[in-house]
Amino acid sequence: MKNTQEQNTDAVVTALLEDYRGGRDIDRMDFYAQPDREEVRDIVLKLLQICYPGYYRDRVYKSINEEHRVTVLIEDVIYHLRRQVAIALHYNESYAHVSEEDIARAGEEITLTFMRRIPDIRALLETDLQAAYEGDPAATGKEDIVLSYPGLKAISINRLAHELFLLHVPLIPRIMTEYAHSITGIDIHPGATIGRYFMIDHGTGVVVGETSVIGDHVKVYQGVTIGALSTRGGQNLRGIKRHPTIEDDVTIYAGASILGGMTVIGKGSVIGSNAFITSSIAAGTRVSIRNQELQLKKGDNFCVSRSELEQDEAWFYVI
Amino acid sequence: MKNTQEQNTDAVVTALLEDYRGGRDIDRMDFYAQPDREEVRDIVLKLLQICYPGYYRDRVYKSINEEHRVTVLIEDVIYHLRRQVAIALHYNESYAHVSEEDIARAGEEITLTFMRRIPDIRALLETDLQAAYEGDPAATGKEDIVLSYPGLKAISINRLAHELFLLHVPLIPRIMTEYAHSITGIDIHPGATIGRYFMIDHGTGVVVGETSVIGDHVKVYQGVTIGALSTRGGQNLRGIKRHPTIEDDVTIYAGASILGGMTVIGKGSVIGSNAFITSSIAAGTRVSIRNQELQLKKGDNFCVSRSELEQDEAWFYVI
Amino acid sequence: MKNTQEQNTDAVVTALLEDYRGGRDIDRMDFYAQPDREEVRDIVLKLLQICYPGYYRDRVYKSINEEHRVTVLIEDVIYHLRRQVAIALHYNESYAHVSEEDIARAGEEITLTFMRRIPDIRALLETDLQAAYEGDPAATGKEDIVLSYPGLKAISINRLAHELFLLHVPLIPRIMTEYAHSITGIDIHPGATIGRYFMIDHGTGVVVGETSVIGDHVKVYQGVTIGALSTRGGQNLRGIKRHPTIEDDVTIYAGASILGGMTVIGKGSVIGSNAFITSSIAAGTRVSIRNQELQLKKGDNFCVSRSELEQDEAWFYVI
Repeated sequence: MKNTQEQNTDAVVTALLEDYRGGRDIDRMDFYAQPDREEVRDIVLKLLQICYPGYYRDRVYKSINEEHRVTVLIEDVIYHLRRQVAIALHYNESYAHVSEEDIARAGEEITLTFMRRIPDIRALLETDLQAAYEGDPAATGKEDIVLSYPGLKAISINRLAHELFLLHVPLIPRIMTEYAHSITGIDIHPGATIGRYFMIDHGTGVVVGETSVIGDHVKVYQGVTIGALSTRGGQNLRGIKRHPTIEDDVTIYAGASILGGMTVIGKGSVIGSNAFITSSIAAGTRVSIRNQELQLKKGDNFCVSRSELEQDEAWFYVI
Repeated sequence: MKNTQEQNTDAVVTALLEDYRGGRDIDRMDFYAQPDREEVRDIVLKLLQICYPGYYRDRVYKSINEEHRVTVLIEDVIYHLRRQVAIALHYNESYAHVSEEDIARAGEEITLTFMRRIPDIRALLETDLQAAYEGDPAATGKEDIVLSYPGLKAISINRLAHELFLLHVPLIPRIMTEYAHSITGIDIHPGATIGRYFMIDHGTGVVVGETSVIGDHVKVYQGVTIGALSTRGGQNLRGIKRHPTIEDDVTIYAGASILGGMTVIGKGSVIGSNAFITSSIAAGTRVSIRNQELQLKKGDNFCVSRSELEQDEAWFYVI
Repeated sequence: MKNTQEQNTDAVVTALLEDYRGGRDIDRMDFYAQPDREEVRDIVLKLLQICYPGYYRDRVYKSINEEHRVTVLIEDVIYHLRRQVAIALHYNESYAHVSEEDIARAGEEITLTFMRRIPDIRALLETDLQAAYEGDPAATGKEDIVLSYPGLKAISINRLAHELFLLHVPLIPRIMTEYAHSITGIDIHPGATIGRYFMIDHGTGVVVGETSVIGDHVKVYQGVTIGALSTRGGQNLRGIKRHPTIEDDVTIYAGASILGGMTVIGKGSVIGSNAFITSSIAAGTRVSIRNQELQLKKGDNFCVSRSELEQDEAWFYVI
């Protein structure tokens, strides 16, 4: 004979089990058929250790023999990643009629291909590390940047996720970049194409869209959007280039928005803080918004509006 | 006989214990009388599993019988939540003279009432999931959204917290939404009233105030503030409607601010990126800021300022 | 005889071990010679428990005797922090020729000096707690703020990190503030000098630079930058004052940017939302951007542009 408390709990359980039978998207129950975010997150942290072997101290494998340590780490990542990739491949239509055995084999091949690309990814990360150091007077050393800077962390995770994206792995790349977004406030889609020596400073609020193309030596500050123009197209726009192209040596200061798939920011241009750009800019151009007119008031007396323009353009740089 | 190290430590301890006797707010010592944030966080994660039974794979209960798994999960949440609610109720003045036994009973009743509302919450979450899918060309499927999108995560946690807010549970709803804020950059007060099919894209920097009222099919992008106008009232403003009303089918693009308790954005309106609105907008209006004048400079030669206005209004949509 | 799978893994391992021999910054292998971020994070959480003894319930030490509990906690922090500090001191050039034993002793002395300053830090945190409560109508009580508010959390961690910064401890202060940045979206450099009664509301996107000087009773809202003007100086600017001075009783509303090492915002000034300031403002001045001209369109009919100026200046406050 159940007591009231048990009966109340039973009633809630019964109501929810009934609710799950609604057949809606939210009711889907194949709960072992998706990548495991916790597992993907662990894999990301281990991949960062593999990319920065000296910086990411390993708390699990206490081995003092670094080669052995790295070996164990790589075997561990291959083992777990291939399983997650195989699970994710079920969401790729081209595997619709492939046997489980072949999907498992595909998962392993993709994982190995990905792991073989890590030296190329590391070559890019070395350039990002240099760019962050040279660009930030507050950086006391490279260790500071690898240990602390959200910009380098977001870029590192994005470069890893981008390779899996290029290998047509569903779901996992976005889980990786949204993990980076969650810890850094920097939202870079895994599809974005990014050149060498990429630097993001502070970074909170940065958005880089799926079809963006970014050249070498590009600097981006907090709150910058490299985004799309809405055409209310929604799902019809999948795959179309909706985001800008940023050529080499471009600097984009805080809060600027650059929008649209046809927009190209020419080589060496500098985009001032808060500028709102929706068409192409020629190479070597410095773009700034005309100075805000400020209204100054003391007590009840209006002062004449002040222009900050006389200060030349220094004002449009925000770091 | 203590050595120097022990003596130094003792001195620090003594100084701090002395410091705690200051009788300030920061010195309060009733440290078992508050909700436990870690526990609330665990409850939130379990509630998300209950809301999305197929998507949030359970790492603890390995049961393959889904009904049994969900049953255990619900019983677990009821057990832990009722304890946290009972602790929190001590901060609700109307329980000032209620016995511990009655507070415990109230904690259980509120928890059960909350759990009974989950099917209604899930009905809303299904609409949010649809809105996110239809609104985002980068979404490859519903799984992508449930597994990765910060917007849906923030909305889901907010809808759960809002029900506890409506049940007058102190502290816990805000702990829940600040947890969501911490992992998504989206700051929605648990008091906000939000309709069906709510979508937030990217989301970093979004702020939605306590007394906001948001209709159905509303879309919001990164950096949008639905906020209050300061009247320097501070605590005197508690309870007063300080935040806007957003009617159905409104879209608010990135960086726009809509402010004030008397401000109503009429049905179907579109608010352009970076617009700053402090009074009501009639239904069906498209609002954009007059185009920024951009100053373009190459080398030392000023170019004439360029207006982007000729591009019609496409420019004011940022996604 | 190894199977194909083992051979493939071996090949990846070999390629990566080879890649580590590149002698680049990213290849550095002295992986026990840096502070451990996980450990520093644990220390931060314990320091917050020590600063707010009644609010941060301790999940590890279940002691009901608060004095004993705090004693164990302090001893624990001293033990772990002195090890991390000693590791970090190797990155301070002035310890280049100091013996390991003396570095260990220095680590302990710095740690004890830091711990002795905690009562002074707590005195400041009490003022921040008061400021947050008085400034926010949505705050139902002090508990709400200590348990949930990201602003107070970021300020608390920053005040702790700032003391270690003043003691010339490398790396650790920035690891602490970037941890705060990661969970709050608020990026305050540990070098920033901040007065009493500092309040940050919402906070996502706030950036406060290394050489900023902030007075008493300053209020800052989401998206505010207190930053530098780029002079393309990069590393040459290290140590130079690059960030503004904000005098007492200044309020800076959402999205405003205040830039440059020579910029002083005078006592009691109010900086309106989205204002962009790069030169000094006299005391007692209310600064607002001239009202945006909004373009309203219904169907195909343009309406006359509306100015919001008639609404006086209320519009420039965003909270």
